[in-house]
Amino acid sequence: MNASVSLPSVLNIRPEAERAPTSGIVDVFNYGRNKPGLIPLWVGEGDLPTPSFITDAAARSLAAGETFYTYQRGIPELRQAIAGYLERLYGNPVDPERIFVTSGGMPAMQIVMRMVAGNGDDVLVPTPAWPNFMGALVTAGAQPVGVPMNIGETGWTLDFDRLEKAVTPKTRAIVLNSPSNPTGWTATHDDLRQVLHLARKHGLWIVADEIYGRFIYEPSLAVGARTPSFRDVMEPADRVIFLQTFSKNWAMTGWRLGWIEAPPALGQVIENLVQYQTSGTPVFVQRGGVAAIEGGEEFVAHQIDRARRGREIVGRLRDTGLVEMPMPPGAFYAFFKVKGGKTSAEIAVRLVDEAAVGLAPGSAFSQPSEGYLRLCYARKPEDLEEAVHRINAALPAIVAG
Amino acid sequence: MNASVSLPSVLNIRPEAERAPTSGIVDVFNYGRNKPGLIPLWVGEGDLPTPSFITDAAARSLAAGETFYTYQRGIPELRQAIAGYLERLYGNPVDPERIFVTSGGMPAMQIVMRMVAGNGDDVLVPTPAWPNFMGALVTAGAQPVGVPMNIGETGWTLDFDRLEKAVTPKTRAIVLNSPSNPTGWTATHDDLRQVLHLARKHGLWIVADEIYGRFIYEPSLAVGARTPSFRDVMEPADRVIFLQTFSKNWAMTGWRLGWIEAPPALGQVIENLVQYQTSGTPVFVQRGGVAAIEGGEEFVAHQIDRARRGREIVGRLRDTGLVEMPMPPGAFYAFFKVKGGKTSAEIAVRLVDEAAVGLAPGSAFSQPSEGYLRLCYARKPEDLEEAVHRINAALPAIVAG
Repeated sequence: MNASVSLPSVLNIRPEAERAPTSGIVDVFNYGRNKPGLIPLWVGEGDLPTPSFITDAAARSLAAGETFYTYQRGIPELRQAIAGYLERLYGNPVDPERIFVTSGGMPAMQIVMRMVAGNGDDVLVPTPAWPNFMGALVTAGAQPVGVPMNIGETGWTLDFDRLEKAVTPKTRAIVLNSPSNPTGWTATHDDLRQVLHLARKHGLWIVADEIYGRFIYEPSLAVGARTPSFRDVMEPADRVIFLQTFSKNWAMTGWRLGWIEAPPALGQVIENLVQYQTSGTPVFVQRGGVAAIEGGEEFVAHQIDRARRGREIVGRLRDTGLVEMPMPPGAFYAFFKVKGGKTSAEIAVRLVDEAAVGLAPGSAFSQPSEGYLRLCYARKPEDLEEAVHRINAALPAIVAG
Repeated sequence: MNASVSLPSVLNIRPEAERAPTSGIVDVFNYGRNKPGLIPLWVGEGDLPTPSFITDAAARSLAAGETFYTYQRGIPELRQAIAGYLERLYGNPVDPERIFVTSGGMPAMQIVMRMVAGNGDDVLVPTPAWPNFMGALVTAGAQPVGVPMNIGETGWTLDFDRLEKAVTPKTRAIVLNSPSNPTGWTATHDDLRQVLHLARKHGLWIVADEIYGRFIYEPSLAVGARTPSFRDVMEPADRVIFLQTFSKNWAMTGWRLGWIEAPPALGQVIENLVQYQTSGTPVFVQRGGVAAIEGGEEFVAHQIDRARRGREIVGRLRDTGLVEMPMPPGAFYAFFKVKGGKTSAEIAVRLVDEAAVGLAPGSAFSQPSEGYLRLCYARKPEDLEEAVHRINAALPAIVAG
């Protein structure tokens, strides 16, 4: 898992490419993807296809011949729609000039990492963390520095002492993902202020991934219907860049549509980096994004309700007494440790074989994560109930040997 | 033109990002994009929207709910279709495991440049050249080294002495684009063998961009209905990677669909780099690609016929005696020098103002290119006739002062 690729030396490939980690999630996925009857909860996507009011908008655009090159920063209608959406959600006006459409959250991250770090630079990433942060940094030539979070009975917490001690002259940025994939950890305003203080003090960029910001279940952590955001505590001059995606809220994982929110002074740089990355996002895909924002609130509410119910169902994994799992306050993942000392990969493979359930090995998310598994509960209740039933039935034998 | 961005130092952005060149084409495009009645010949795309048999395939896929994450290497049906297409075009079987679907030709190039070069490395690029080669190299941290081609009365030629003299211990690869954007230069088999010899001798990768390989007008350079290809002269062990795109043949510029053809030993590395770049290409876009290959031959033939006719019309620019323009043997660009010593940018702006025609400034394509302009003739004859008429009428005043 997570091994870099071993190549014939004759191929003579750059270390940034050769060291790019193979996803440990994909490994297990490839192992079990064709197993009949398997309930797939390993990938970070729900089971609902994109609603038809969104796919229809894209189909209309295709039929209308919107098949040419377009604006590198995104079509004006979508940039405007996103700015309006952010204003409604966060309560303050957003300049559309801050919005840069990308072909997904991952391309947004790749561009941001290219801007903030390269060879010889360190970037701090509280862990467990989505492995793609590490992958994007490695391919940019930078060194991701995992800073382990603390785990207690009530959940995960950021360790600010450890974070500050990890800062060196080579440190260029901090990645903060709240609510977190995989742990569901959700930052308070005080957490965000402390990270901001650290970034200001050491001249660091903050890369803010708040893409699960509407999936919040713990009322004490909610600000209305969303989580605390850096935008609540930052000043305009702060070096904070936001990553966003249409994937999760609007069930558009396969569309590859997201955005960067950044200071307008970076506009030309971002435009250039889009040019040399994807050369823009298809107009017909962007029309889907406009439709999602304009007509999607009911669907998003439905998705959040479903995830809330899914979280309750998945909580029953604790009934066995064989897992350690504080209830996640946000996002839509359960991240739990199986007692008994088996590795994540062993358990994941055995759950494919013995329970026909696909989970992601926690070890893919950096330490402390060995022995953990990640389960995505953005799925219909029947599947989740059956999955929990099967896992709970299989775990005693897996823990025993 | 081509200036890097000047940013407040407080932003503290990596040099690979800050030095990424702003496209000189985009500069003029932004200057003239809203001028009424302008005939736009600056961008490398035709005037036909994607045919409906392709857009319909994508719309059906969307309606069928193919909106989830997918294979990082591309859906098997498309990889198979591409391999079959290459076999029909080039006459030899192609293993689908050599094919890696990307979100356009540019993402293909970005991944390839990431593999072959980074900080401290040089890559040779015969010039004039498409500026995105340079951009992809700069953002990878590498140094593009332009190697000027020679221009004579009969056209452009590669200077092999100059190419070999440009090789240093830091050189890692040669980019070869044939037929060339912008010059239309088309390599003979002997040219390709000489480049291959050089690459073998110095242990270099060849990045082969043969995307205009079906747009060939000079019979003495054609191999059947396509241009000579590295695949005609290489051995399986040679380090040659091909970039390809659906954009040009099938009028799919806005779709962002292309592929890499590479040794299967690089498969896992490419899969990982796709993961950290776009995380895959939408399935519904890939379904459009399958339809394009399966049903597109008549349309491609129509596109080529149109370009052939366009080339003849554009040849009349020479009637003024104010331009130097050897007829391009391939691709679909006229690349011509305007006499009188004005810069490319000056002429391009004046042609917007005085002729309402949009051309790309040649200087965007690296030297020798100052004073040149690039015109894309993949367009309906009526527009091209009118454009040539207007340019020929405007040129005397522009040349005079």
